[in-house]
Amino acid sequence: MKYGIVIFPSKPVQDEINSYRMRYDPHYDLIPPHVTLKEAFEADDETIYELITELKHIANDTDPFTLNVNKVRTFAPVTNTIYLKVEPIQELHDLADAMQSGKFPKNQTYSFVPHITIAQKLSQDEYSDVYGSLSMKDIQLEDKIDRFHLVYQLDNEVWTVYESFVFGKELV
Amino acid sequence: MKYGIVIFPSKPVQDEINSYRMRYDPHYDLIPPHVTLKEAFEADDETIYELITELKHIANDTDPFTLNVNKVRTFAPVTNTIYLKVEPIQELHDLADAMQSGKFPKNQTYSFVPHITIAQKLSQDEYSDVYGSLSMKDIQLEDKIDRFHLVYQLDNEVWTVYESFVFGKELV
Repeated sequence: MKYGIVIFPSKPVQDEINSYRMRYDPHYDLIPPHVTLKEAFEADDETIYELITELKHIANDTDPFTLNVNKVRTFAPVTNTIYLKVEPIQELHDLADAMQSGKFPKNQTYSFVPHITIAQKLSQDEYSDVYGSLSMKDIQLEDKIDRFHLVYQLDNEVWTVYESFVFGKELV
Repeated sequence: MKYGIVIFPSKPVQDEINSYRMRYDPHYDLIPPHVTLKEAFEADDETIYELITELKHIANDTDPFTLNVNKVRTFAPVTNTIYLKVEPIQELHDLADAMQSGKFPKNQTYSFVPHITIAQKLSQDEYSDVYGSLSMKDIQLEDKIDRFHLVYQLDNEVWTVYESFVFGKELV
């Protein structure tokens, strides 16, 4: 089964971000706005059971932190994905690093850049237009984060949540 | 903010149910297949914080159980919703009852019928066709349930998970 680990911002922030991604992100219907902490990985039931214990420890070792978003950026020329840059504070790097060590499969292809995707899989012409218009927007978002979610993908590509991990609140 | 409480069956069961609901359920893109334990209710941040403590107690007081599905039924003539009937075992009723008592808002309009919706908001002609064809299918699903999820609704009507509650595993 294919799993991933993400942070969902709070509803007001998700609603604002959805207003940007609605027209330009073909994954709009597959998963709400999110920061990916660990990209999709395969795990069987036994492995995921072990990883859930690890995730509880990680959550208990993490304090709530503030997530700040204030820039539109792009991964071009690697891909033409357009994203909201999330201020890369230590807590986010620590979370992502912890999920690449110990029992976790090491599946990080690029260096970790915390972000929220708002447009992807655009044609080259669309990309230029959309990046031009999105990068002129004044986007200032701030959010308190106190949890992350383990998600899995259904056959129709929709991601659904298996378990939430609340910082300092997990019974191990 | 609008919340609900649901059980998501496991991926294989969700995938099979999605194959039925894909064409007939306009909520297909809004939430994966689920059993609703508590219908949508409004709660502010302070209330939901209190209810989460209650939900942890409820989860800790519940043992994992088996969910069985083997009949296609309809709520007609009240609505033309078509659903998979979930065997109404005591555990499901206890969960739904607990979420209507104590600090929880009492928002149950009809008596609790555990079910998974596969078709709704059909025209009368569609309804007859679809009910005829779905009710001839031999659907036998069995699933082990060990958790429920508190979900909330975004402005685009998509439901996303706030927190999971695993039976016997919550720190209160």
